[in-house]
Formats: sequence, structure tokens, C-alpha cells
Amino acid sequence: MSEEDAVRSGDGSNGGDGSPDDLTHTDDAGDVQMVDVGAKPDSSRRAVARGEIRLTPGTIAAVEADAVEKGDVLATARIGAVQAVKHTWETIPMCHQIPITNVDAEFAVGDDRIELTVAVETTGKTGCEMEALEGVTTGLNTVWDMVKAAEKDGDGQYPDTRIADVKVVDKRKETVDA
Amino acid sequence: MSEEDAVRSGDGSNGGDGSPDDLTHTDDAGDVQMVDVGAKPDSSRRAVARGEIRLTPGTIAAVEADAVEKGDVLATARIGAVQAVKHTWETIPMCHQIPITNVDAEFAVGDDRIELTVAVETTGKTGCEMEALEGVTTGLNTVWDMVKAAEKDGDGQYPDTRIADVKVVDKRKETVDA
Amino acid sequence: MSEEDAVRSGDGSNGGDGSPDDLTHTDDAGDVQMVDVGAKPDSSRRAVARGEIRLTPGTIAAVEADAVEKGDVLATARIGAVQAVKHTWETIPMCHQIPITNVDAEFAVGDDRIELTVAVETTGKTGCEMEALEGVTTGLNTVWDMVKAAEKDGDGQYPDTRIADVKVVDKRKETVDA
Amino acid sequence: MSEEDAVRSGDGSNGGDGSPDDLTHTDDAGDVQMVDVGAKPDSSRRAVARGEIRLTPGTIAAVEADAVEKGDVLATARIGAVQAVKHTWETIPMCHQIPITNVDAEFAVGDDRIELTVAVETTGKTGCEMEALEGVTTGLNTVWDMVKAAEKDGDGQYPDTRIADVKVVDKRKETVDA
Amino acid sequence: MSEEDAVRSGDGSNGGDGSPDDLTHTDDAGDVQMVDVGAKPDSSRRAVARGEIRLTPGTIAAVEADAVEKGDVLATARIGAVQAVKHTWETIPMCHQIPITNVDAEFAVGDDRIELTVAVETTGKTGCEMEALEGVTTGLNTVWDMVKAAEKDGDGQYPDTRIADVKVVDKRKETVDA
Amino acid sequence: MSEEDAVRSGDGSNGGDGSPDDLTHTDDAGDVQMVDVGAKPDSSRRAVARGEIRLTPGTIAAVEADAVEKGDVLATARIGAVQAVKHTWETIPMCHQIPITNVDAEFAVGDDRIELTVAVETTGKTGCEMEALEGVTTGLNTVWDMVKAAEKDGDGQYPDTRIADVKVVDKRKETVDA
Repeated sequence: MSEEDAVRSGDGSNGGDGSPDDLTHTDDAGDVQMVDVGAKPDSSRRAVARGEIRLTPGTIAAVEADAVEKGDVLATARIGAVQAVKHTWETIPMCHQIPITNVDAEFAVGDDRIELTVAVETTGKTGCEMEALEGVTTGLNTVWDMVKAAEKDGDGQYPDTRIADVKVVDKRKETVDA
Repeated sequence: MSEEDAVRSGDGSNGGDGSPDDLTHTDDAGDVQMVDVGAKPDSSRRAVARGEIRLTPGTIAAVEADAVEKGDVLATARIGAVQAVKHTWETIPMCHQIPITNVDAEFAVGDDRIELTVAVETTGKTGCEMEALEGVTTGLNTVWDMVKAAEKDGDGQYPDTRIADVKVVDKRKETVDA
Repeated sequence: MSEEDAVRSGDGSNGGDGSPDDLTHTDDAGDVQMVDVGAKPDSSRRAVARGEIRLTPGTIAAVEADAVEKGDVLATARIGAVQAVKHTWETIPMCHQIPITNVDAEFAVGDDRIELTVAVETTGKTGCEMEALEGVTTGLNTVWDMVKAAEKDGDGQYPDTRIADVKVVDKRKETVDA
Repeated sequence: MSEEDAVRSGDGSNGGDGSPDDLTHTDDAGDVQMVDVGAKPDSSRRAVARGEIRLTPGTIAAVEADAVEKGDVLATARIGAVQAVKHTWETIPMCHQIPITNVDAEFAVGDDRIELTVAVETTGKTGCEMEALEGVTTGLNTVWDMVKAAEKDGDGQYPDTRIADVKVVDKRKETVDA
Repeated sequence: MSEEDAVRSGDGSNGGDGSPDDLTHTDDAGDVQMVDVGAKPDSSRRAVARGEIRLTPGTIAAVEADAVEKGDVLATARIGAVQAVKHTWETIPMCHQIPITNVDAEFAVGDDRIELTVAVETTGKTGCEMEALEGVTTGLNTVWDMVKAAEKDGDGQYPDTRIADVKVVDKRKETVDA
Repeated sequence: MSEEDAVRSGDGSNGGDGSPDDLTHTDDAGDVQMVDVGAKPDSSRRAVARGEIRLTPGTIAAVEADAVEKGDVLATARIGAVQAVKHTWETIPMCHQIPITNVDAEFAVGDDRIELTVAVETTGKTGCEMEALEGVTTGLNTVWDMVKAAEKDGDGQYPDTRIADVKVVDKRKETVDA
């Protein structure tokens, strides 16, 4: 819908009861808005994002041994990632709500880092890379939350913990046979 | 689903294991319920709502000069409106969740009021006027929240601030070519 | 927290690992921000808001007779209002989450309107007038949602339905004896 | 999406910039995941769940007389049930969000129990029995919340209150004519 | 706040601008309302609820062997339970939001059932048994969701699956030393 | 509450009515759980997190000129960050809900990156670094969402866009004078 349409259709049904002539319409340039996806066809879409959290070797060992006192780090982070994917439409202000058909969250553990890959699939009118990115960042934040006690130094700071290299590694769209 | 269906299908699979004969089914008349939209076709729908907040001239001037200490009033209210549109299915108890394809929020500023027009579009089984209305009222409440300090009198009251004339100015439905 | 503090504490722990010197800090003037309530004492606070929805006499009669097909209008709207009060911290972008201790939603029915008064009480660091306003506007929107079928004209429009005169009628703060 | 796909598509766009060779991919066996419903057709689906709450005869009498001080028990529980149905996709970690087209909540009152039947209908890619179950358990919990004062003994305990016999009584799927 | 107060304080600030004399205040008897907890002291409170889900022996064996295709049943259900505890204030319409300080979810596995005990602790103005009950019922529903494929019969029905015996097993309140 | 307590208090009030002797309590080692903060005093706490998003120079220029078609990037991202801070208790599965008293989100714009610093303050029983981290990652994801059209290459991929160097730069706790 163009701004002009909004204004015109409003004026048409606005019989002099409250909208005085002296109103100044704000300049729309730069105003935030959702993208109109009404005319887009439903497509089968897939996006994969990836990122990593840098951790101390001691923390990595504890995660692998399932010896973190707060509980199973990767199982909790996987659920945090899936939930974040599903909530992206309310977390990112201008995102649309799209029907998520599949989420896959995969961890890979290195000597000094844990890498998280989140693949999201939808059959909808707009892509799902923001969903995949929210899955990755919230999943990695959940890892951080679970290992806080191990990563903090004596002063309560996190000198070495980092979330890094969060990117979209793949994005695809296919026509739906419908 | 008719009430009778609900009762009957229940009874059928209810082999004497916990539901004694002496249960009194509550009279359904007046009981709140969602409208069954299962048989309705997907249509392209659009609703536009509008309302206004009355403010003191000093507040209006501060909004236009972007001089409100709490920040950019209209940008924040626009986002509050869009988020409210997306959340209407949980805010209004009997609303259905419908796929919002477009939201457009427009402000017009007068000498003593700010008017907000919210247009919502969906491709679904039920209309979106409640979404547009929630966008308008929450957008106007967000304006109020941002200008609280300017509108309060010495006693902490709001003698002049008002939200008024909230109405649905247009509602349309078109068949989807599918 | 002042902006300067944020910048300085950041710089201190920022040992050359990614934040180059050539960054331009955005001008904070006009940037939206929450109000810092950390230094405010907990007080017993109460706010009362009120508003009305104008309806056709036939709809009013149906509401009073509990004859609206979608169900009990005022019971549903009362719950919608209470839930909206509790959710205000996420609905209004810059609101704080405060502990609501009491909500009272009262309807008064006239010949051509239903008036809703919502009183909210909290023991917190900031007032609850936005909570009361969200209760009123969402409660009235819920009334609208419940009587849509009765209020629509033959063309699917709402020529007479209006939400009007939404205001804060009382706001108080008392020191907590603690 | 198979796990292999996720790994491979990720590797393909992963030009040596952060994912070292020494990463150990976690064994996927037992890892929680959503079911991929992307290839499933939209079907018309219906599920009915039922359960009961055991209450003291005095409480039952108060519910039937609408004499519970906290308010109308069944009206509130009915709305609690409908809202729970709509929120199941976020309450149950691995559920998909599906478009609910109809919810019907029915109470039956016995001498020592209140039975709640919730029927849910959707036109989607996966069934809605979890939605019906969440409607039943949250509806019954809402009854409990409304009658707490009547059910508590002198020691603040609930010796007799029970939620019992929660089951899925019917589940159907029909092809959508589309 | 008494109802009389609400009416009176409203009338006092209601200078003839929109609230005509002919309004009929609805009879409050039976109207749902939150309990006013404003005058209650903060106490250390604890509630424990328990319930069970009846499952087929084959499903129980798969859960114990962590061989359920959809993933780790008990880890997922534990997180579902904790999240449900935290969300009770929005799930149960008349619940207050209280600061949860601790949640403990414990499973016990028998030959034909899994039992879930959820203990919740808070330092607040009202008890947390509803939080414990929501933790139990949503935790058990999450178990159901994870084992759907194993529990369904050839006709897609759940002839044996049941949630049963959900009760509050302990509830305590202690004065906070403050 | 220790695990032993949970088991014992449950057993104590469990008079043989539903918990048969043959139940096997699951081994708690590794089970995820919230940290018990009930015995911690309320403290004034502050955490600052920082991160950056790498963008193409053309995108940076468009952001600075407020020429991005989807709207004001930094205003939207600032609100996204504040909302994410407030929602951390539900986004990160094992986080507690704490009363946020202040949030400050600051952007700094470089030639090839935008840096976001989020400072969070609370007066509660546990720290707020997860809130600050969620503010940073969601704020940066919101930037990404707003500039998607500018950052995508001809193939719909994001070859250069990265979120990087997300860290906690400061964390403090002070005793509250109460």
C-alpha cells in the first residue's frame, strides 16, 4: 500500500468529524515500515546461518564431559535456538510472521570454540534468514548463560568469551508446486 | 464445530472411565467462543483505523522539533503500533492469528493533536480491523508514554491529554486469485 | 547512566581488538531511551484511566441481555483489560516492568455507550498510568471485537462505532513504610 | 532437511574463515529437533481433548451459584483455555505454529468434579492435539486458580484437589479441497 | 482497592465531560478480578506440585534409552516445565507476576508412567502453587509431544496415554528477614 | 533448594496415592536447572556488552544519510535492543526475570561497521550480562534486517555481512542501601 492510498482512503470516509484541515502529515521519508509482501507468492525457502562462541579450554572440556553444573549446555542451547527462531517475528520489529516448517540446530565443538549452525525452512512470502540469525545468536547466548560460572575470572569479568563470525551461509528459494 | 458435535464425539470415545452420567453440561448460551473460520476462503483483506491524541501546544512543538527528552516520539510510536498489530491475536482474547502482509502507520500533526492512521493488510480467513484498532490505540498510548513529562501538571495529573475519535475508516475484502 | 559513562567504561576494556578509532558516535539527542528509575524509591502507586465505546442501541441491548452470539462481552473484555495491564511493559516500547499488585476493571452501560474504568496499583519505582490506559483501550477494543457482527452495516463498515474520551482520571503516589 | 544437508551446505560457503578443521560435530542421535513438516500438505484437522478437576462439593456449589469471590470461574477458565490453545507453539518447545481456525471449550459439572472438553480445528501441516491438551490443562489450572480460597484447608494445603484423566478423545484429518 | 473506591475516585475527577448521568454500573458480584496483594508482605514461599503421564512400556523403554527419534524427552520437558513456571502470570488470567527465585523439575520413571515433580520458590506477595502446577502440566504435555509417534495407534489415536493425578504436594510460607 | 530436599519434601506428603515404589528417579547430574537466587541479597548491578556488524560502505553511507528505504535503521535497532533486554528472561531458558531499571543503547558508526554498546542496570538478585548480550545481538540483527536489500548480492546472498566481536565489556555489583 502506498502512503498516498492510505491517506486518500482515510480522507474519503472522514466526514468532517475530527480531522481538521490544519493537520501536517509527517514526511514519510525515513519512516520505518514493514515490507509489503502481500503480492509475493508462497515459496519454499531455506536459510542457514552460522556463528561461534570462543570459550576457554576448561569450559570446552566441561561441556564435552557434560560436567557443567547448570546442566546440559548444548541441549539447552538447541532449545533456546529453536524457540528464538519461532519468536523472530516479535523480536525483530519489522519482521513478518511466517510459518516455520523446519529448524535444525547443529553444534560443532573445537578446542577453543563452539560453532552453531541453524537451518530454517518456511513456505511463505518472505525469506527466513533473520530467523536463522536469531537462532544462532540466541543459541550462542544460551551457551554463554550456561557456562557463566566457568568463564568468569576472579573479578567477575569475561576477558576471553566472545561471540564471533555470525553470518548467513546459505539462502535459497524454490517455487512451490501448488 | 457445533456444540452438539463436541459433546457427541466426546461421548463416543468415553468408555465409562471417568465421566459419570451425572454431569451437567453448562448451558452454552452466552459462553464466549471464537468464531469458526475454517470454512472461509483466504481473501485479500485490508482495514484502516484512525484515532487521535489531544496534547498541549507545548508538547506538540516539542514533538515536531524532536526535542522530547525521552527520544523520537513518532518513530517509537510507529514501532509500537506495528508491534501491536502483530500481537493482536494474543491481546484480544477471541481473535484468530492471521498472516499480516503489510502495516502502514501514518501520523498527522495538528496544533493540539496528533492523528494516527494505521492500515493493515492480510491474506486470510477473517478481517483485520481489530489489528488496525490495536495499532492505533497502542500507537497513541506510546505517544502518551513518550510525552508524559511534558503533559503532566504540577500535581502529576493529565488534565488535558485525551485519546479520542478512534474509528475504523475503511474495510475491504477481495477474492484471492489462487 | 550517562552516555559518557557508557562510552568510557567501554573504552577501558577495549584493548585494540576490533573497535577502530575512526568510529563516529551517533548524536544522542533525540534518541529514544528508557527513563533511569534505579535511584527512585519503591512507592505505593495507583492510577485510574477511563474511556468509552459508542455503540448502537441495539448492540447495547444485546450486551445487557447477554444475547451477543460470540459470548459474554463484558466478562471477556474485563479479562482482556487485566491481561493488557500485565503486558504493558512489552506493549509500550519504553515502559519498565513493574509489579502489579491490583487491577480493577469496571463497566458502566449507558444508552449509547459503554464506559470502562481501570484502576491499577503497584509498589514500584515508576507510575502505572500507562498500564491503566492500556487496560482501558484494550478492554474497549475487546468489546468492539465481541460485537463486530452487531455493529457492522450492510457494507461491512462501522459508521457509528467509536472509542472516545480515554483519559487518566487519577494518579497517586504514597511512600511505602518499609 | 537431513543433518548431512545442513553440514554440507554450510561447508560449501565456508571459505576457511573461522571454522577450523578440528571441530567435532556433536552426535545428532538423541538431539531434540522439530519435525520437518515442509512436505506435508495442508489438511483440515481436528483434535478433542478432555480432562477433569476434582473439587470439594462446597466449591462445586459455589461455582454453580456463581458465588466464588474471585469471579466467574467457568468464563475465566474458558478464556484461559482458548488463549492456551493459541499459545501452544511457544509453550511446547518443539511444536510448530499452526493456524487455529476454531476452538470450542465445554464444561460439564458433576457432584465432585468439573470436566473440560476442548476441541481445536486447524487447516495446516500438522495435527492439533497438543493445542487441545494445553487448552484442557490450562483451563483446569485456571479453575484451580479461581477456587483456591475455597479448596485450601486450614493449613493452606490442597488435600483433595486433583487434575485427572487428561486424554485425547478424538483426532481426525481430512484432505482440503484446494 | 475496594470497588467503591474505584467508583468514587473516578467520579471525583469526572467533570461532566463525557460520562452522562444515565450510566448503569454493572453489578460487580461475580465479576472476575485479581486479588489485591498490595498490603501483603514479601514472604519466602515454596510450592511443590506433582503429576504423571501414563505411557506404553515401549515408549518408556525408548525414553530411558534416549532412543526417541524427536530427541531427548526429559531434557526438553524439563525446559518446557521451567519456561511454563516463568510464564504462569500470563497463562492463568488472574495470576500476578511474581519473582521466581528457583525452579526444580524432577522426573521419576516407572514401568508404565513418568512422574514429574516441580518445586517453585519465590520471594513475593502471593503463593506459587499455580506456577508449580503449570510447570507440571506443561512438562507432562511436553513429554506427550515428544513421544507422539510412539504412543499413537494405527488409527492415529492415543488410547492409553493419560495425564493423571496432578496435585499440590506441599506449600509453605516463611517470613523474610528484611 | 537442593535436589535432596525436593525429593524428600515430595516423599513426605506423598501418602501412597499415586507414586509407586518402583519409580526410578532420573540421575540429576547434568540436568539443566535454574540457579537458586533466593538467598542472594538485592544488589545494584550493571553490565555493558558490545558488538559490531560489518557492512558494505554503501550501506553505511545510506544508514548515515537516513536513506534506507525500510526506514530509520538505528532508531529501529535501538528499540529492538531495548525490547530484547526486557525479554531476556523468556529468551534464555534458564534466566531469571529481574527488574530492569535502565537500558542505554549506543551506536558508533565506522567506515565498514556499526558498533552497538548496550548498558543494562537492575536492582536484583542476579547479574544482567545476559540482558546486555541479548540487547547487543538482537540490536545488531535488527540492523541487518533493516539493510537486507542493500547488503544482498545479485544471488540473494550476504557475502560480507557479519556480526562479530560480541563481548561483555563491564560488569559491576554494588550493595543496595536499604
